Amino acid sequence: MNSLENIVSLCKRRGFIFQGSDIYGGMAGTWDFGPLGVALKKNLTDAWWKYFVENRDDIYGVDAAIIMNPRTWVASGHTATFADPLVECKECKSRFRADKIADGINESVTTEEFLETHTKCPVCGKENWGPIRKFNMMFETHVGAVLPDDDEETSKKNVAYLRPETAQGIFTNYKNILDTFYPSLPFGIAQQGKAFRNEISPRDFILRDRECSQMEIEYFVHPDTWEENFETMRDLSHDFLENVLNLPKNKIHELEVPAEDRAHYSKRTIDFMFDYPNGEEELMGLAYRTDFDLQNIAKESGKSMEYRDKITNETFVPHVIEPSIGVERLFLAVMASAYTEDEINGEKRTVLKLPENLAPYKFCVSPLLKNKPELVAKAKEVYNLLKAKYTNVTWDDSGNIGKRYRKQDEIGTPKCVVIDFDTLEDDTVTIRDRDTTNQVRTKISDL
Amino acid sequence: MNSLENIVSLCKRRGFIFQGSDIYGGMAGTWDFGPLGVALKKNLTDAWWKYFVENRDDIYGVDAAIIMNPRTWVASGHTATFADPLVECKECKSRFRADKIADGINESVTTEEFLETHTKCPVCGKENWGPIRKFNMMFETHVGAVLPDDDEETSKKNVAYLRPETAQGIFTNYKNILDTFYPSLPFGIAQQGKAFRNEISPRDFILRDRECSQMEIEYFVHPDTWEENFETMRDLSHDFLENVLNLPKNKIHELEVPAEDRAHYSKRTIDFMFDYPNGEEELMGLAYRTDFDLQNIAKESGKSMEYRDKITNETFVPHVIEPSIGVERLFLAVMASAYTEDEINGEKRTVLKLPENLAPYKFCVSPLLKNKPELVAKAKEVYNLLKAKYTNVTWDDSGNIGKRYRKQDEIGTPKCVVIDFDTLEDDTVTIRDRDTTNQVRTKISDL
Repeated sequence: MNSLENIVSLCKRRGFIFQGSDIYGGMAGTWDFGPLGVALKKNLTDAWWKYFVENRDDIYGVDAAIIMNPRTWVASGHTATFADPLVECKECKSRFRADKIADGINESVTTEEFLETHTKCPVCGKENWGPIRKFNMMFETHVGAVLPDDDEETSKKNVAYLRPETAQGIFTNYKNILDTFYPSLPFGIAQQGKAFRNEISPRDFILRDRECSQMEIEYFVHPDTWEENFETMRDLSHDFLENVLNLPKNKIHELEVPAEDRAHYSKRTIDFMFDYPNGEEELMGLAYRTDFDLQNIAKESGKSMEYRDKITNETFVPHVIEPSIGVERLFLAVMASAYTEDEINGEKRTVLKLPENLAPYKFCVSPLLKNKPELVAKAKEVYNLLKAKYTNVTWDDSGNIGKRYRKQDEIGTPKCVVIDFDTLEDDTVTIRDRDTTNQVRTKISDL
Repeated sequence: MNSLENIVSLCKRRGFIFQGSDIYGGMAGTWDFGPLGVALKKNLTDAWWKYFVENRDDIYGVDAAIIMNPRTWVASGHTATFADPLVECKECKSRFRADKIADGINESVTTEEFLETHTKCPVCGKENWGPIRKFNMMFETHVGAVLPDDDEETSKKNVAYLRPETAQGIFTNYKNILDTFYPSLPFGIAQQGKAFRNEISPRDFILRDRECSQMEIEYFVHPDTWEENFETMRDLSHDFLENVLNLPKNKIHELEVPAEDRAHYSKRTIDFMFDYPNGEEELMGLAYRTDFDLQNIAKESGKSMEYRDKITNETFVPHVIEPSIGVERLFLAVMASAYTEDEINGEKRTVLKLPENLAPYKFCVSPLLKNKPELVAKAKEVYNLLKAKYTNVTWDDSGNIGKRYRKQDEIGTPKCVVIDFDTLEDDTVTIRDRDTTNQVRTKISDL
């Protein structure tokens, strides 16, 4: 069954994703990508970069530092508002996100409202709660020479945060891009990179982790044109997800986020929801952020964020459309869509029906038998030929041929090329198709 | 002149690298890559990944989390020894790395030895020093629900660090790779990613930054074969730097690191030094780390790190050869090697002679005149043709043609393709070569 547990198990068993710091019993909310996970993730991020940055003339890439000047987070509102409601059980001292352990309340719950829900502690079963406190989810650190016995003032001066979103690394570079490339509106700035959120209770595999990768674009537009540009980014997002990555259209649902649920900076947001094995969850967000960020940066920095139109000479602060994807959420959507259990000639198998452009390997090359040097030599020849042409080609001579097929099915390799005794005679090989398991014979020269 | 200042200036002026958090007056030791810097950096990291991971059968890629279980750093020795000698001026409270402000002492300097150097405070000029204290360079943070009024014990329980090197993300996954892929020795695990070092005084542009990207391989070998594998990795490193990236051989010097200067875990280290504009500096390191890391992980985790030879059944803990490159150091070496000032027909220019496989753009396409619609239309046609084929193609119709050439020279574009009135007649274009400035006419169909 296409359950989250089965996917997690496959990810670990086949080297896609391991628990972070596994060897030391883990580190909650972190995950390590193994060899196949890295390959698939790179295919995803490269596809996005190519589609939104390299293939376009109007979107500029940046790669900003993770540790930013802390004024960034004052301007963006994160210092004041990027917080979850934390509640502590006075009996057993366990701490929880209040809105996750009680029904019918949201992030802005008050202590009184929470107590009215009469929630019992999930750990000790008692109902003896401390007050609701705001817990800021930014990871805090100190930059520069701070010593353990420094007074609070010295220590505070050096506080910095791990960025909780990549977006601010874009906004703070808006003026650099204006001054260096003189782009005309509309234009975008794109970034891929890590972001960190100190979730109180990380869960759901890579869906809610503490360390994630984001791919974000801030698309700067004339305020009067935000609606048409919103539509453009909406269309491009669908095209990328459905036609480049081949995610099933019927699993993607737009959710028009009502005003009361939108982030403080947004005047319109569509969440692209995806049918994950454990239910519908956000896959990406498309937000109209107005000029909220640029105006706040202007205030905090004292520098003008105005754009001057080259033809009309009109000056104004651009508005922003933001398509934002979490790489791990995308990764899981791709894995969940590909994960299939079927039966071929009465034999059950697990197969990962990844699109060819995303599969870690395009081809697997094997000799039919491992202990026949002439087969191995010929297979190596074919392997080197394909590897020179496609790079993402793997070699497998372990176990018997059936076992190899099962393994390649599980890691999503579309084609297995097998060299047998006939190959030595007529230079033909067997190509086995992952999805149908059909086999055809082909000339090596036609590969 | 090929000075560091000129390169820093070009990087900023042309959108390769901006100061981190520039808009807020910066964040010491951090740098943001602009559109051209991202492109060049991606070409470098992709070239390394292709050479050392994708093109090989014996090296597995991983991408581990930045925040690791803190026991990682106990086992690796970083908690105890990854520290610089910090000294504070009692007069003005400025803090310095002791070995950087006094001559003839090293990282293990004692307070007595430092006082004997009679160093004056670089800020206030006085000579009134506090004791030398060990300052651990790992950035500390707290993971999970820690509140400001927590007692020290609760708070300490949740301490974690930003990884100071990517290597440990590899070592902690060694067993995952063994158990999932069953590789035979020698085999390697490779990782690219960020590492963080809280330098007391970051300096020298991107050479000594607080947030850097590393590319590291741990190559696991039989203890008896470390010397030959060390030589293999040494040869591959030279080949990659000199033949793939085209760095000038005569600027790379091997430095056999003497025992007293080697890291605590290393039995042999060669530093690959590079002639940077501001002097010789380490570009990459090649270290024989013995079984130091795996043995310590075995002790700390209680799990066996032994490898069993598939043929002889011999069991042992593999030894490790580690080639390690800092991406920013490599980036600067490439920029410094490419940066040239020359004179063409009496006119001085700055030109970035980047190899074709590293340049942000391979081609620039322009119409000779911007205000002739038929030239612009034809140029767009050629642009689209080339863009479909090569992707990394740029369009430039700003200023006059001379200005465009100067800009493309400065960003290292090897070829400028210009569409003029003859193009409309005979479908030929001018191709101008960046390095020679020679121009030839070519049929569009031959591009």
